[in-house]
Amino acid sequence: MKRIVDVAAQLGIPQEDVEQYGKYKAKLGQDVWNRVADRPNGKLILVTAMNPTPAGEGKTLTTIGLTQGLNRVGHKAVAALREPSLGPCMGMKGGATGSGKAQLVPAEDINLHFTGDIHAVSSAHSVLAALLDNHIHQGNALRIHPSRIIWKRAVDMNDRALRSIVVGLGDGNGVVREDGFMITTASEVMAVLCLAEDMDDLRSRLGRIVVAFNEEDEPVTAADLNAVEAMCALLKDAIHPNLVQTGEGDPVLVHGGPFANIAHGCSSVRATRLALKLADYVVTEAGFGADLGAEKFMDIKCRQTGLFPSAAVLVVTVKAMKYNGGVSKQELASENVAAVRAGFVNVQRHIENIKQFGVPLVVAVNRFATDSPAELDAVIELCTQSGVRAILSEAWENGGEGCRALAQYVAELADSSDAESQFQLLYPDEYSIEEKIEDVVTRIYRGAGVHYQPAAKRALRKLEQLGASRLPVCMAKTPYSFSDRAGLLGAPEAFTVEVKDVRLSAGAGFVVVHTGQVLTMPGMPARPAAERIHVDANGSISGLS
Amino acid sequence: MKRIVDVAAQLGIPQEDVEQYGKYKAKLGQDVWNRVADRPNGKLILVTAMNPTPAGEGKTLTTIGLTQGLNRVGHKAVAALREPSLGPCMGMKGGATGSGKAQLVPAEDINLHFTGDIHAVSSAHSVLAALLDNHIHQGNALRIHPSRIIWKRAVDMNDRALRSIVVGLGDGNGVVREDGFMITTASEVMAVLCLAEDMDDLRSRLGRIVVAFNEEDEPVTAADLNAVEAMCALLKDAIHPNLVQTGEGDPVLVHGGPFANIAHGCSSVRATRLALKLADYVVTEAGFGADLGAEKFMDIKCRQTGLFPSAAVLVVTVKAMKYNGGVSKQELASENVAAVRAGFVNVQRHIENIKQFGVPLVVAVNRFATDSPAELDAVIELCTQSGVRAILSEAWENGGEGCRALAQYVAELADSSDAESQFQLLYPDEYSIEEKIEDVVTRIYRGAGVHYQPAAKRALRKLEQLGASRLPVCMAKTPYSFSDRAGLLGAPEAFTVEVKDVRLSAGAGFVVVHTGQVLTMPGMPARPAAERIHVDANGSISGLS
Repeated sequence: MKRIVDVAAQLGIPQEDVEQYGKYKAKLGQDVWNRVADRPNGKLILVTAMNPTPAGEGKTLTTIGLTQGLNRVGHKAVAALREPSLGPCMGMKGGATGSGKAQLVPAEDINLHFTGDIHAVSSAHSVLAALLDNHIHQGNALRIHPSRIIWKRAVDMNDRALRSIVVGLGDGNGVVREDGFMITTASEVMAVLCLAEDMDDLRSRLGRIVVAFNEEDEPVTAADLNAVEAMCALLKDAIHPNLVQTGEGDPVLVHGGPFANIAHGCSSVRATRLALKLADYVVTEAGFGADLGAEKFMDIKCRQTGLFPSAAVLVVTVKAMKYNGGVSKQELASENVAAVRAGFVNVQRHIENIKQFGVPLVVAVNRFATDSPAELDAVIELCTQSGVRAILSEAWENGGEGCRALAQYVAELADSSDAESQFQLLYPDEYSIEEKIEDVVTRIYRGAGVHYQPAAKRALRKLEQLGASRLPVCMAKTPYSFSDRAGLLGAPEAFTVEVKDVRLSAGAGFVVVHTGQVLTMPGMPARPAAERIHVDANGSISGLS
Repeated sequence: MKRIVDVAAQLGIPQEDVEQYGKYKAKLGQDVWNRVADRPNGKLILVTAMNPTPAGEGKTLTTIGLTQGLNRVGHKAVAALREPSLGPCMGMKGGATGSGKAQLVPAEDINLHFTGDIHAVSSAHSVLAALLDNHIHQGNALRIHPSRIIWKRAVDMNDRALRSIVVGLGDGNGVVREDGFMITTASEVMAVLCLAEDMDDLRSRLGRIVVAFNEEDEPVTAADLNAVEAMCALLKDAIHPNLVQTGEGDPVLVHGGPFANIAHGCSSVRATRLALKLADYVVTEAGFGADLGAEKFMDIKCRQTGLFPSAAVLVVTVKAMKYNGGVSKQELASENVAAVRAGFVNVQRHIENIKQFGVPLVVAVNRFATDSPAELDAVIELCTQSGVRAILSEAWENGGEGCRALAQYVAELADSSDAESQFQLLYPDEYSIEEKIEDVVTRIYRGAGVHYQPAAKRALRKLEQLGASRLPVCMAKTPYSFSDRAGLLGAPEAFTVEVKDVRLSAGAGFVVVHTGQVLTMPGMPARPAAERIHVDANGSISGLS
């Protein structure tokens, strides 16, 4: 590992501007921003993927490998990635810092507390929750209706017992009411932190967060509870992007980690903007598959900020195509060219979708040892027939060297396009919320239409009253299918998307559309990842990722 | 402010050993320890106080001022202090970094997330709680009895609505059961972190934590749940002391912050040991008044570690004496020499108590602007009559310069004594738990005796079965009185202490004796401190302390 001050030096950042967190992590604060603000912007590359499968597609792996590759072929590139949440590290998933020869380091630190950003979000979320219940306990001047409180509590842990709870029991402990915890990455505070341009914008957004409704059914906000300044104080360092490196010593900004279903699932706007000042190419990723992640990246993050990608990389795997072509999880390692061809319909639709946004595209085939030459040939041929180049990525086995061809082509693609003029959002702000939902469902998911359940209809009317109609929609849908049913693989058609609820995230600036059971607090499996961890006497950790 | 690497340099620590957290905070890890391990130990000075009153006695202020004073008169001194908890910062109390000219800096950072230690404790506590409920949900191989779970949840926030809750509601969310949150500083993980000698000791202690009893009423531990390694991983950085400075540039280790009622209330053993290698005089403080704080410092921290203070400083104020002499809070600013004389009985008893431990003593009179010369003369005269010198401390107004006389005498006192041979614990390990409780009650509190409620009697029998009889006791008692009734000021006699419950903290290595309602989750007042905070566009915070 290089010292982090040396990584910063590669980017032209002098040591005195670097806020070190130990020798291998740093925050890049206002001093850095002031120093680079007048530099021209680099080009933004979005890494997205086909629909995820149990085999894993390697989107983060490819993002890291591509960044390494761009630097290996002589460009100046930085990756901008999300921060891993502690809950999944201890629960199902383990760490989230890439693997093989495309990893972030120091992986253990990044996977655990890192520079404390997620803890800061937990604290800011918690103080708002505590101030809310305290306000009611101390006389409830705002006339908050105890059964119309929508601000839950948050903790960064997979803890299913906290999903649905009753609080305030006992004498003198406030009002007895139903409540529940979400994992911190699902908190609107996280979404706000990731979309805020600066401290003033953060303050405004936090103030707009609706926490409850009063006896007259009017919204009560974080600003009404005088919670905003305390939340800003708790987030004063968390607002600054974090600098780490790849295993090959390339700079990476890791900052923010909002959920990809009830939020937009991208790393922070501040990190993206800073990265664009620090490098010629900034490689970033969006959550889940392109139907959710890329669509939200464009229609939420780019819409709110004016940012736009100059190229997109669609990560696919032979295994994921076979899975979408009907092969069971157990048989994904066996050659099956016919299934690859059958499953290509999933890739095809994502290609078409990304083209709708006017973003030039390449398919990155993340190579696994089990892929046969015939299968790989089929993928490349099918992509070519769809008018898109497909390039093998060997990030896991060979790191940046394994991504040279991909990197070279991505740079060409980004340079050749007039991205700003070609980029287009899916729908205009002026559409109604229903029109926006229908646009996403029919043009991205390719469903036949939308059915609104009664609760959703009521919620839509309420949103209109609240003046939220101009906001973009944030679809909470299963990531496994284009449809709202996880089992419909490939490229399903003629389905209707069922909208169960519609909720306002006024601070984040979007309307969350619930199309199924949305689980905001994961549980742990029978053998939690926590049980595989080991620490030696020097504090070195193994078994985490 | 000096750069933290320059503060470290004052202590002979080279820059490469310093784990910086920004420019003004650092962790001192194993590299530092290895470098200084062979140095001789400095002398330990314990700062304690008379019983606390609503006027505030300024114990932390005096600790910081004395450290500054020792350095001003030419000695090499370091302070070892507790970390402030976020909950009180947002709730009742505001910050906890001293005031006036005796402050820790950067105060806002220390009061908020600091280097993340308390967040790490929250996470380690939370993963154990989540693993416990998950274990039951996944089949309960350990046969944990759901109504005999004693491991609550923890969060670093004043949130009374979480004191008493029901978790696990809804389908698939585990077992419905009563639960509750404590503030993180009340977690046994915090006590364990503060008493652990190193990672191996931390591991052993965490493993011994009893979280529940099974169907056969046998203890279930954190080790049984395979939680220990994950907890160690989460605490791998938190175990290292943090370096900051006073407003006058003197080094301070701020590390750990356990509750002073259900835990021992001192900063960490590791910070004390490291500080003793780094300076000739280490000034540290204990929680609450000497009846609780100093007794626990001696009988828990010193007993477990072999550490001992070479001198003690008893902080008193004219106001606190008047309050103990019967003056109401509103009239404490008016001269009342008779009340000072009447309230001296409280000071007198603390003086006698500290002498029982064989520790040489000085009284520090923390001067307030409202103190009259006649009142101050009375204090000094009364102390002299008791055979103890009293010295004015003007830390608030004049910083280290205001503590020169105190510092000079404290150094003399520490140097003149053969502290190690004179130091004695209050009671031997061999005493039964009841004998230990009775020793503290009759010899420190000066009560007539102890009455055990039925639940306490049952708990004592259980502790014997569990083989916990050799552990020291940790008294959870009101800090405001020597007795277990807050209103009995001065030097009450002939009272009986009511023991309501006795609980094992097997990881921390003590038995907690509950003598009243023990509140481990504070609430917020009608006007929470959080509402007074402001952050400017540069992230500078005001209104926090």
